[in-house]
Amino acid sequence: MTAAPPLSPTPRSTVRRAPARARTDRAELYAVLDAGLIGHLGVVLAGAPVVLPTGYGRSGDTLYLHGSTGAATLRAAAAGAPVSFTVTLVDGVVYARSTFHHSMNYRCAVVHGSARLLTDPAERLLGLEALTEHLAPGSWTATRRPDRKELAATAVLTLDLAEASVKVRSGPPGEDERDLLAAGSPDPVWAGVLPLRTVAGEPEPCPLLPAGTAVPERVRARAARWAGGTP
Amino acid sequence: MTAAPPLSPTPRSTVRRAPARARTDRAELYAVLDAGLIGHLGVVLAGAPVVLPTGYGRSGDTLYLHGSTGAATLRAAAAGAPVSFTVTLVDGVVYARSTFHHSMNYRCAVVHGSARLLTDPAERLLGLEALTEHLAPGSWTATRRPDRKELAATAVLTLDLAEASVKVRSGPPGEDERDLLAAGSPDPVWAGVLPLRTVAGEPEPCPLLPAGTAVPERVRARAARWAGGTP
Repeated sequence: MTAAPPLSPTPRSTVRRAPARARTDRAELYAVLDAGLIGHLGVVLAGAPVVLPTGYGRSGDTLYLHGSTGAATLRAAAAGAPVSFTVTLVDGVVYARSTFHHSMNYRCAVVHGSARLLTDPAERLLGLEALTEHLAPGSWTATRRPDRKELAATAVLTLDLAEASVKVRSGPPGEDERDLLAAGSPDPVWAGVLPLRTVAGEPEPCPLLPAGTAVPERVRARAARWAGGTP
Repeated sequence: MTAAPPLSPTPRSTVRRAPARARTDRAELYAVLDAGLIGHLGVVLAGAPVVLPTGYGRSGDTLYLHGSTGAATLRAAAAGAPVSFTVTLVDGVVYARSTFHHSMNYRCAVVHGSARLLTDPAERLLGLEALTEHLAPGSWTATRRPDRKELAATAVLTLDLAEASVKVRSGPPGEDERDLLAAGSPDPVWAGVLPLRTVAGEPEPCPLLPAGTAVPERVRARAARWAGGTP
């Protein structure tokens, strides 16, 4: 499916809990990152972890992050502190016949490493384009690009996808044999999956737009990317 | 609306970026935590942050976490290491007239502190009940409770909601005056919000269930809790 090298686990990117859920194909890492909208960035500040949500973009094996040059977490990451960046998609609630086997179906990518602060103007623009296009495809071309002052206020970082793990749970509940036997009773405990998905609603125009301004194709297409969303 | 004390910001729970988005009512913290399904737990392992998704439960100002007694992140948290626990709900993609003002609508709660490993059997059961009922309301009563062996394999932790912050963005894009003026052109750049929400699909019964087993009310009600979900 892909010519990219498989995910090579290091000690910290090795899935230890429920290892059967680990995925080693790099294409699966890309798939989770491309399907997600936000990730959770963890950095260590004054000895304690801080976890904050943030958008991102991807190009090949490079993940782009950005934010205000004044943000403490981003400043720590830009200074080379180790980071963890995690993207999780919840696909369903797993109902089992025992409370113990209740679970969730999900796809999760965890990236470990140190980020690099971009200083080259062209590289920075590539990063901002990747970030914009991940969030709102087509907006990089359709809207006013950042000017000098906006660029100066924005830190753009890269994180290499060298050290990453992917974990996926799907399908029906796992059960204990004894609970399955008990399920032969006339009134069995229901078990199965309640699937969840993200959908887009009708676009809500900015009140300052002239009445009747058409919703552009890029916004319609973005909505359609979510299964079941308004096409 | 609530008799609980407001969120008292400490240096690390003070919202510094876009402070207008900070919320100080404790009821808003509860609302975000109760609306979320998973959070991202950050701990420091060997000097580096590790961020992993996990379920949770809440009772008053106590957050419950659980997992395998063998999980390294949970073991570190149980040993009293500082943690960060973040719950984020993405409510929409915000399209602006400039790339710089593109954003997301979201609700986010960040909790800082040190977790405590529960050892009292009754407290542990209360925690597991809160966790189960957060994920799958009704399942604590309807399904087989954890037995001695399952309990021994499960670590249950509490995290106090003493130090927490809540940040919310909603509404239309913020814009620069100049972009609004330019929007007076005959072909204005579309701006607005593409709302996103999580919906539940049709419950998928476990293949091992007898054909025709009815989907119980607790599962139907869970689905209905997501706006637009199958009632």
